[in-house]
Amino acid sequence: IMASEQDCRLKLIESRVRAFPDFPKKGILFRDICPILKDPEALLAVTSLFEEYVKDKFQQVDLVVAGLDARGFLFGPLLAQRLGVGFVLVRKKGKLPGATVSVAYDLEYGKAEAEIQADAVSPGQKVILIDDLLATGGTLFAACALMRQLKAEVLGCLVAVELKDLNGADKLKPHSVYSLLQYE
Amino acid sequence: IMASEQDCRLKLIESRVRAFPDFPKKGILFRDICPILKDPEALLAVTSLFEEYVKDKFQQVDLVVAGLDARGFLFGPLLAQRLGVGFVLVRKKGKLPGATVSVAYDLEYGKAEAEIQADAVSPGQKVILIDDLLATGGTLFAACALMRQLKAEVLGCLVAVELKDLNGADKLKPHSVYSLLQYE
Repeated sequence: IMASEQDCRLKLIESRVRAFPDFPKKGILFRDICPILKDPEALLAVTSLFEEYVKDKFQQVDLVVAGLDARGFLFGPLLAQRLGVGFVLVRKKGKLPGATVSVAYDLEYGKAEAEIQADAVSPGQKVILIDDLLATGGTLFAACALMRQLKAEVLGCLVAVELKDLNGADKLKPHSVYSLLQYE
Repeated sequence: IMASEQDCRLKLIESRVRAFPDFPKKGILFRDICPILKDPEALLAVTSLFEEYVKDKFQQVDLVVAGLDARGFLFGPLLAQRLGVGFVLVRKKGKLPGATVSVAYDLEYGKAEAEIQADAVSPGQKVILIDDLLATGGTLFAACALMRQLKAEVLGCLVAVELKDLNGADKLKPHSVYSLLQYE
């Protein structure tokens, strides 16, 4: 019963992802998650599946950290509230005030620098990383590097959509990746 | 009792906003809302105050629309879930696939173009606009213009922080603005 109820939520979420060929450039099949957010039941399903996975797998979570502007911010605060923990932002360089640490990373479509406030995460804190989509893993890899700089412990990475062909999960090893939907 | 309990939540939220002088450039006093998100109680307070305001003031809400990448996405999905309605993204031009409508607007620190998917909002739908901060009102003004293009009805604009000196609320008239915290 548990499994089929979970399956039902995954089917709902899957029905709310649209594919757009050749966006943002020729040869890229863009997975659009906007319809998930427009359907309150589908968005609830994403949050509850993430919450159940985290509670089942990890005994203690101190923070949810999102990588990166902007779609990483869509699911993170919802999950953090469900877990009763704080939410921390990883942002593109230059957006965060105060003392920061930063790291360069490869994007699916280019290069950039990711940044976090130096006091956002404390040494030893156990963090969940979250993003909307895992492609080559560049942004989550950068988020892991920032966590290492701040001496936090990455429990695992959560994404709504995983593009398997791009091998992002390999890049993030030894950290685990939990994805709701997988596409070739 | 109601009023003082509300006041207590506002004080908590206020205690979680930090001011950084001369960021992102000289002469700007940057209000940093990151500590709100890092404190689950403060984030809950923001969501519940928004929720109570909307339920008290508007009989029917069809959608919550956020303007704009990226901090507009932090509170929007939380409020939409509380209200049981969908969440729609306004983004910087070029980020959204499929048919879109767009509008040029003035930023506090420059110029940009805001965009929304053409099927994101239907004619006649009653929408709440949400953002983290109201400065000159450029981004919310652009979001209002997009709603006009799609023939939706803007019920009002919600922000966590309002910078009164910049007169953003005047720019948004006749639409109402509800802010949790006000700074000169």
